[in-house]
Amino acid sequence: MQTRSETTQNQIKAAAINAFCQSGYDAASVADICEAARVSKGAFYHHFPSKQALFLTIMEDWLSGINQTLFSATNSGKPVPELIKEMGNTMGVIFRAASGQLPMFMEFMVQASRDAKVWSAVIAPYRTYHQQFSSLFDKGKQEGSILPDIDSTHVAHTLISLAVGILLQGVVDPVAADWKQVTNAGVAFILDGITRGES
Amino acid sequence: MQTRSETTQNQIKAAAINAFCQSGYDAASVADICEAARVSKGAFYHHFPSKQALFLTIMEDWLSGINQTLFSATNSGKPVPELIKEMGNTMGVIFRAASGQLPMFMEFMVQASRDAKVWSAVIAPYRTYHQQFSSLFDKGKQEGSILPDIDSTHVAHTLISLAVGILLQGVVDPVAADWKQVTNAGVAFILDGITRGES
Repeated sequence: MQTRSETTQNQIKAAAINAFCQSGYDAASVADICEAARVSKGAFYHHFPSKQALFLTIMEDWLSGINQTLFSATNSGKPVPELIKEMGNTMGVIFRAASGQLPMFMEFMVQASRDAKVWSAVIAPYRTYHQQFSSLFDKGKQEGSILPDIDSTHVAHTLISLAVGILLQGVVDPVAADWKQVTNAGVAFILDGITRGES
Repeated sequence: MQTRSETTQNQIKAAAINAFCQSGYDAASVADICEAARVSKGAFYHHFPSKQALFLTIMEDWLSGINQTLFSATNSGKPVPELIKEMGNTMGVIFRAASGQLPMFMEFMVQASRDAKVWSAVIAPYRTYHQQFSSLFDKGKQEGSILPDIDSTHVAHTLISLAVGILLQGVVDPVAADWKQVTNAGVAFILDGITRGES
């Protein structure tokens, strides 16, 4: 069960996500967010020292959620290509969970390109993803499921770039494709490339 | 040689790109841009009816430049996998040409998600890229250089997503990788996937 404090925090976060998506981070004021969340400014600042702190909390929630969803199965003992395919499937779950909140993703990037604090908060988990994927491909080479001459860091960057690109296009042009299907197809092409079609 | 009118337009565009990158589209005013470009407001409005019109012109310049760079070789008669590899190489040229202007790329996306006019201007060339890539893969299947059971629209979405994702990461974290090398590696994995390593 949520405590009263958690309920207030979640109300503030939900109102902030709405406000950031609709007006953008810069234009959305603490006053707007308080009004939409039906909380006082006093309550707001009790929970979050600043608009930026709130923004960073939302971002960390989102990234740690993706992290848990993606990497929960990595210790299951399944071969790496199978794990990667499953991760492709869970991208669909991530899309659904983030549905309507996706313009936030671009706000993260825009703010990160302008503010060192936000940049560090975006980059740290991003680099963690990259390391986790690289290790996974190293493991795949050891178990023999991935071709031995493949550069693990390159495959990791390729897969993450694919995911980031699909996410961005899914925000901007959601109806242009069945993005879940595109994700699965894209992952399959790359897996075929790094296993020579033996996955 | 540039006419005087073109020189003024280019000064305004260069100042606007700087202003949009540094302060963002919303915060950068026509007055700021005029001051940086050393032109009067009268001259500005002689060339561009509004800040948005200027923004759209910059975006169209950028996208048509990419288009020309990418698709200039498609009628050379080379096999499709080779053309795609060359396109991967020219991504490096695009990165360099856009160097320092890349935060604009995110501004395009953010504005597109909020404004129907910008959205149409982003989406039209994007959908054109997708069609051009799809046709290219159809041609590859006809000439036998691409596996016959490959879905051309899926490969097209995958390649564009990869490019968009790399571009975005190159903006946010330019030093995390040699993004040109990542592009070539990513394209190679996908090509191996759709040719079963025979490219």
